[in-house]
Amino acid sequence: MATTLISGGTVVSATGRAAADVLVDGETVRALLQPGSTLLGADVAASVDRVIDATGKYVIPGGIDGHTHMQLPFGGTEASDTFETGTRAAAWGGTTTIIDYAVQTYGQRIQDGLAAWHEKAAGNCAIDYGFHQIVGDVTSESLLAMRGLPEEGVTSFKMFMAYPGVFYSDDAQILQAMQVSRETGMLTMMHAENGPAIDVLAQQLVDQGKTDPYFHGIARAWEMEEEATHRAIMLARLTGAPLYVVHMSAKQAVAQVAWARDQGQNVFGETCPQYLYLSLEEQLGSPGFEGAKWVCSTPLRSRAEGHQDAMWQALRTNDLQTVATDHCPFCMKDQKELGLGDFRKIPNGIGSVEHRMDLMYQGVVAGHITLERWVELTSTTPARMFGLYGTKGVIQPGADADIVVYDPAGHTSIGYDATHHMNMDHSAWEGFEIDGHVDTVLSRGKVIVDGNSYLGAKGDGRFLRRDLSQYLV
Amino acid sequence: MATTLISGGTVVSATGRAAADVLVDGETVRALLQPGSTLLGADVAASVDRVIDATGKYVIPGGIDGHTHMQLPFGGTEASDTFETGTRAAAWGGTTTIIDYAVQTYGQRIQDGLAAWHEKAAGNCAIDYGFHQIVGDVTSESLLAMRGLPEEGVTSFKMFMAYPGVFYSDDAQILQAMQVSRETGMLTMMHAENGPAIDVLAQQLVDQGKTDPYFHGIARAWEMEEEATHRAIMLARLTGAPLYVVHMSAKQAVAQVAWARDQGQNVFGETCPQYLYLSLEEQLGSPGFEGAKWVCSTPLRSRAEGHQDAMWQALRTNDLQTVATDHCPFCMKDQKELGLGDFRKIPNGIGSVEHRMDLMYQGVVAGHITLERWVELTSTTPARMFGLYGTKGVIQPGADADIVVYDPAGHTSIGYDATHHMNMDHSAWEGFEIDGHVDTVLSRGKVIVDGNSYLGAKGDGRFLRRDLSQYLV
Amino acid sequence: MATTLISGGTVVSATGRAAADVLVDGETVRALLQPGSTLLGADVAASVDRVIDATGKYVIPGGIDGHTHMQLPFGGTEASDTFETGTRAAAWGGTTTIIDYAVQTYGQRIQDGLAAWHEKAAGNCAIDYGFHQIVGDVTSESLLAMRGLPEEGVTSFKMFMAYPGVFYSDDAQILQAMQVSRETGMLTMMHAENGPAIDVLAQQLVDQGKTDPYFHGIARAWEMEEEATHRAIMLARLTGAPLYVVHMSAKQAVAQVAWARDQGQNVFGETCPQYLYLSLEEQLGSPGFEGAKWVCSTPLRSRAEGHQDAMWQALRTNDLQTVATDHCPFCMKDQKELGLGDFRKIPNGIGSVEHRMDLMYQGVVAGHITLERWVELTSTTPARMFGLYGTKGVIQPGADADIVVYDPAGHTSIGYDATHHMNMDHSAWEGFEIDGHVDTVLSRGKVIVDGNSYLGAKGDGRFLRRDLSQYLV
Amino acid sequence: MATTLISGGTVVSATGRAAADVLVDGETVRALLQPGSTLLGADVAASVDRVIDATGKYVIPGGIDGHTHMQLPFGGTEASDTFETGTRAAAWGGTTTIIDYAVQTYGQRIQDGLAAWHEKAAGNCAIDYGFHQIVGDVTSESLLAMRGLPEEGVTSFKMFMAYPGVFYSDDAQILQAMQVSRETGMLTMMHAENGPAIDVLAQQLVDQGKTDPYFHGIARAWEMEEEATHRAIMLARLTGAPLYVVHMSAKQAVAQVAWARDQGQNVFGETCPQYLYLSLEEQLGSPGFEGAKWVCSTPLRSRAEGHQDAMWQALRTNDLQTVATDHCPFCMKDQKELGLGDFRKIPNGIGSVEHRMDLMYQGVVAGHITLERWVELTSTTPARMFGLYGTKGVIQPGADADIVVYDPAGHTSIGYDATHHMNMDHSAWEGFEIDGHVDTVLSRGKVIVDGNSYLGAKGDGRFLRRDLSQYLV
Repeated sequence: MATTLISGGTVVSATGRAAADVLVDGETVRALLQPGSTLLGADVAASVDRVIDATGKYVIPGGIDGHTHMQLPFGGTEASDTFETGTRAAAWGGTTTIIDYAVQTYGQRIQDGLAAWHEKAAGNCAIDYGFHQIVGDVTSESLLAMRGLPEEGVTSFKMFMAYPGVFYSDDAQILQAMQVSRETGMLTMMHAENGPAIDVLAQQLVDQGKTDPYFHGIARAWEMEEEATHRAIMLARLTGAPLYVVHMSAKQAVAQVAWARDQGQNVFGETCPQYLYLSLEEQLGSPGFEGAKWVCSTPLRSRAEGHQDAMWQALRTNDLQTVATDHCPFCMKDQKELGLGDFRKIPNGIGSVEHRMDLMYQGVVAGHITLERWVELTSTTPARMFGLYGTKGVIQPGADADIVVYDPAGHTSIGYDATHHMNMDHSAWEGFEIDGHVDTVLSRGKVIVDGNSYLGAKGDGRFLRRDLSQYLV
Repeated sequence: MATTLISGGTVVSATGRAAADVLVDGETVRALLQPGSTLLGADVAASVDRVIDATGKYVIPGGIDGHTHMQLPFGGTEASDTFETGTRAAAWGGTTTIIDYAVQTYGQRIQDGLAAWHEKAAGNCAIDYGFHQIVGDVTSESLLAMRGLPEEGVTSFKMFMAYPGVFYSDDAQILQAMQVSRETGMLTMMHAENGPAIDVLAQQLVDQGKTDPYFHGIARAWEMEEEATHRAIMLARLTGAPLYVVHMSAKQAVAQVAWARDQGQNVFGETCPQYLYLSLEEQLGSPGFEGAKWVCSTPLRSRAEGHQDAMWQALRTNDLQTVATDHCPFCMKDQKELGLGDFRKIPNGIGSVEHRMDLMYQGVVAGHITLERWVELTSTTPARMFGLYGTKGVIQPGADADIVVYDPAGHTSIGYDATHHMNMDHSAWEGFEIDGHVDTVLSRGKVIVDGNSYLGAKGDGRFLRRDLSQYLV
Repeated sequence: MATTLISGGTVVSATGRAAADVLVDGETVRALLQPGSTLLGADVAASVDRVIDATGKYVIPGGIDGHTHMQLPFGGTEASDTFETGTRAAAWGGTTTIIDYAVQTYGQRIQDGLAAWHEKAAGNCAIDYGFHQIVGDVTSESLLAMRGLPEEGVTSFKMFMAYPGVFYSDDAQILQAMQVSRETGMLTMMHAENGPAIDVLAQQLVDQGKTDPYFHGIARAWEMEEEATHRAIMLARLTGAPLYVVHMSAKQAVAQVAWARDQGQNVFGETCPQYLYLSLEEQLGSPGFEGAKWVCSTPLRSRAEGHQDAMWQALRTNDLQTVATDHCPFCMKDQKELGLGDFRKIPNGIGSVEHRMDLMYQGVVAGHITLERWVELTSTTPARMFGLYGTKGVIQPGADADIVVYDPAGHTSIGYDATHHMNMDHSAWEGFEIDGHVDTVLSRGKVIVDGNSYLGAKGDGRFLRRDLSQYLV
Repeated sequence: MATTLISGGTVVSATGRAAADVLVDGETVRALLQPGSTLLGADVAASVDRVIDATGKYVIPGGIDGHTHMQLPFGGTEASDTFETGTRAAAWGGTTTIIDYAVQTYGQRIQDGLAAWHEKAAGNCAIDYGFHQIVGDVTSESLLAMRGLPEEGVTSFKMFMAYPGVFYSDDAQILQAMQVSRETGMLTMMHAENGPAIDVLAQQLVDQGKTDPYFHGIARAWEMEEEATHRAIMLARLTGAPLYVVHMSAKQAVAQVAWARDQGQNVFGETCPQYLYLSLEEQLGSPGFEGAKWVCSTPLRSRAEGHQDAMWQALRTNDLQTVATDHCPFCMKDQKELGLGDFRKIPNGIGSVEHRMDLMYQGVVAGHITLERWVELTSTTPARMFGLYGTKGVIQPGADADIVVYDPAGHTSIGYDATHHMNMDHSAWEGFEIDGHVDTVLSRGKVIVDGNSYLGAKGDGRFLRRDLSQYLV
């Protein structure tokens, strides 16, 4: 197989930096080497098939987006990115692994839900992918089926405290599923919002004629995210299950995670770029129906209340451990528009899978996080959290050669026309300017993005069988 | 220069493990390689001068003990380990770097204090060493002198809220020194105990005839560690100085550190093996004068109050970031005995520099911490905290080849006769059994410990000029 | 009407003591007077119809038990005290007001539930009584009916987060009821335990053959009381409703109340004597089926975990505001016995209405609370909390003459045979010795207990129309 | 002696209200009576010497100002109110008791300090007065002398963590004094600011030419109030002493008090009207030297940071227990002016003794506190806290007839010209409008203020020998 040397760059890990060359042999990292032309007498650069010059650039493990929803059926429509378009967009942005959510719906067998997602993804992905399992119907049968998931390489499952009548599980169901989590070591993931209470508020708002997208954010009050987070923590404490709370946006909810962690519980929190940069007042409160672009759940929060700053701080203090996208794109036309006149009918979701690495790098530029923390939040910790470390999330001998060469002297403008690759008719991030650029992306040794060229192909990506979480204490 | 291959082992870092060979070239790590005989056509093992077989063993960055006091004058005597004996003992135990404390005493110039410590250490050390600076007399002159320390490679200084009349600084002095810390980026280190209050309590105990070593622990109440920790945190908050609290033993004090960190302050905490394993009731409360062996400050805490468990938990939750030894050995004869009849006159200190890596590894065996966390607490984070990362604290190309081959199938019995190498007539750790063993120790590429042989020499170790902390958020 | 002078005693209020005589005129306190024979020339003692000598004794406002369940249908049987027997027992123990819970069951109209309770109580009570309303079925109709309750003199309603299928309300229902609470000023009372989760645990225990009363306490884990308390607090915060959490027993749940109060929320907590004195290990864990006597919900908690001490402390610190009994007696024979072989079928409840004043006075003797706090917790605050102050809960001109003369030099032995007056075939308090004695009890001026004689009559007690809470901040 | 009936008013206590007449006989409350013309056949109103019509008005126990400094020597001058002028002004404002601070200065005997204050006050006061003892020099002699204070009717002493070189005590001294507090039951009062740190900051500001009054507030940072409060709490915890923190203004410091109280410590907090209404930005930051009027310590805090709202909340939640004035007036001319060009030389203090009852009543009007809480904060709790309850702080038979008739329909404008009675050439409260009015003031039965007339005389007030605190739990 072909050999490649990424030379002259700064290899960045979760703990620091090294001036080192990376030798890739086929799909795998073969060695990290001190820069220089010879090793044990051999002229390394001269011996390889290809040399990628990374001088002045960062060489980082490929991004791992632990939360995506490609072609998810939701609210009578389907997320607009297929596994093909979505993973290709991810690759463009320096993400080389996604973990998508297979769905078991009410009345369905878990095995069938998982199989359906395999079918959607197989042969279509540009990058490697794994699955979490959404458990939408806890029964004695599904509790049994859950125990078989680790053998399938699916070592985490998500439940919803929101969306009654759709994905919702009640506390009795959550408790039982968490017992399985405790016994098997699988990670319990939670959408933590008090859905029954939120639905009452939403109905009351609509009854009052408050139907604009903005009221989506009002109905989904932070108190109900905080409450559900605390409840999930206590159920996890009772059962001993490890708990990972997805897409956190309320500072008070994060405080609950911090509290649980300070007491030694295996509780983790994820946030997303939208909760770091965007707000209730500015984006969701855009005039007319424009705010629909930013309807997602949990919702964007008030900047006046300081949630965004608190999320950045929690990333610094490790009260939050990962940044994913919750990528779930819908076009305005025919999709978001379903909610004209009733915010409850707007499909929930924002498309960000392409921009996460850039948006988080901008956090480095702005001084919110260190360069190392950038790598840790977007790659190393997701790998450890979801049982991929060693293969993914780190540049070390034996690891998959999922590598991004990132240029801190480059620039990336995010916008609508021809500048993103997600299957959306708009961008939630239009106008964002990034002081850096994804130059080269290798997925298992293959250069799939090179400057402004996409060199990958549908089907490059393989399914990842994941181990149990390597991040527990 | 000579080349060495450490082959077949599991390289453990702060974030995970890799099956990788380590190629050492002279003093430096040249490469990490996938195991196997060839690299780009070359038979690596055959090409090097020496192969160390690490099959079945852990290959870890050499330990960094961030807190030692070799030959420290204290209480009318001097710590019994010289830089020669102490660093050699450290090497035996897998520690390849110490950071010792140079002392400025009252009335002395900082420059002179530092020079004196250079004189003690130069040419005598078995391993590399750096210095923190104790500032024992804050004046306008010393505040000025402090600003010159980073140029000398000394990027941290310690102050004492305890020991009035000896090292003690009052809050006005601390505030001013912290302002220098804020401006220069130097790390403020703090012995956080309310000395004036403790001295009153100690005097009252002695007046009541309570003179046994046990009362050392009673006088130094946890309330006074908690209080001083909080005070140091607030002074750091006011000034913006980064703060590192040394040798923490009270769970309530650690809770203060956790609180400060949750609010985003650069506040860090160190504990020591003695606070994890030993207690007020068991060791310090030994019959007669026996407890003198364990007189150190902060003191051993009550097991009934749960401090030891809380320290382990804080290591897991990252509320504490490092484990050092506060190595400050005194013999019973002629030294500890100075305090017969008055616990206040017992020289404060325990000798542990040789055993830290083993004792913490036992925490892995016992399930208190993960293998990765062991490396992080004892090497990687100290390196980052004290500005040594890249050179020390990690096995990566370009790093100093400070490497320990640790055998999890080995065994180490700690005791007095001929089984430790510290210059002490007893051991504070007698009877501890470790399910692991330091097999081989390399210091900058030189094998200084090999099985049961010491191959190093006085003067092997060099002074380390340290950068500013790389651990700040 | 007849006049009575209670002379020579120490009148104790929530804030302090006074050496004062109390002049009662008919049903009402007419005056508080400095002791002595004359007032404006009149010889007071000589002018009244009756003088009660309270020399050396405490003169306190009659006890108000804010939580009783006379003849409550529960678990296929009915609480064994009728309004007649229960209120008479209360009177014996120095309680002159109870507030019982009228019940709306599922499918029933609130008005009908309240009417049924009026029918049970009218003409039967020995002392005055009021009603809280249990809302067991939140519908648009019942939400409307709730708004009419204040006009009926019922200014508080209770919901259950426990007992799915019986009294349980889900969060959507609770939210809507709290909105009514916010709008009307009615107090929301909450049984805060996560019933759905508890029922899973209970079923699992029974499936494992763990059917003894002790497992009632295991199934109803403190985590689920803490969780529900937090959830109720957050729903109250979202809606702005005042919240009163009944029968608290877990220290962590009380910590949630303290937290809410520190932030200025109108959140209150009640505990009961059983949570102060009795424990999971000692009483509920009694051999065989004996523990059934102490099956109540929330359950008795572990003494090893320190809940009892924490309850006393919370009473001191005002993190809890009232002590009621949750009086809900069942005989062992034919009633508690229903749960032989399945703890879930044991009717939940303990009988204490007669002993609350004594048991809490013993807390004064033991130094847990002050004499003033005793009066405050058992009478003055309940009166303020439930809108009775001025008429009840205080000895002042114009107040109902509900007065107890309590002898600190007396003694009360609590036990089974002929020594209590509740309609139970056992006592949960057998063997408790009290260093004090209820000597004389006046209910609206009528002496109903005098030494060891009961002088009252069925029907003495009247229904109390209550105002809105006077305790809100 | 003369008899007076205060009739037709609403008697307000800490727990509620009563429509009651108050019969005063000589200096003492003889009875509380239901309104109406007859009592046991006697026409009460016709039988008394004087009837005060309180119809439509509140009848409350006279205010107790627990913190004043009449004619205090400070900063080279002396507080401008003498005991004569200051207590007369207090009377005008409805305050009938002050507790002033006797001072022991460095090198002086406590007995002599106390004697000197007796001399200043004796025969000069318009209202009753007590003393706290300032301990400014802790020595073995003064520690002994402190034990004699309770016998002198002085049951509380204050220490200063601020003002090094003047009143300052170090932690060793505080610890020893608190031990005396623990043993004797005396209350430890604390001025909690870290003086040594503050003095460094102040010097640096002056060195930078920042000499305006505003910088007084900058130098005395909230962090140093929070820190000192925590330190005092921990020293109190260690010794078991009850602790009362005076003049609190920082919300973070109050949070420390709340924390200590939640854990059951006898820790109390006092605030003053200036910390509720005035701010760093508005008053202290007035142009030029104007801000000197509001130079006091602790300083006015930033409104943007929300301290004022937090103080009101803490009064509601009982995290603060009392409101005093810290009355320490200085004229601008010749006094405040001493600090022209150096804020450190501005005598610290604000004059408020006349306005406290009105200013706090305005908090009732504004909805910050209830009417009952007004009485509790300004009279009942100070009486209990400082060992005066029964005689003061409550209207009950046997109490001193210190009574204020307060008209909620009245109005009070506060300002400079002829509208206040304190000996100051300005008012810190100019422009405040109060929706209420002090109509009548009785001091031990004598009407000393009647509408707009002052009927009292120098020497009316007597020294109060105080008991130990009645407020401890």
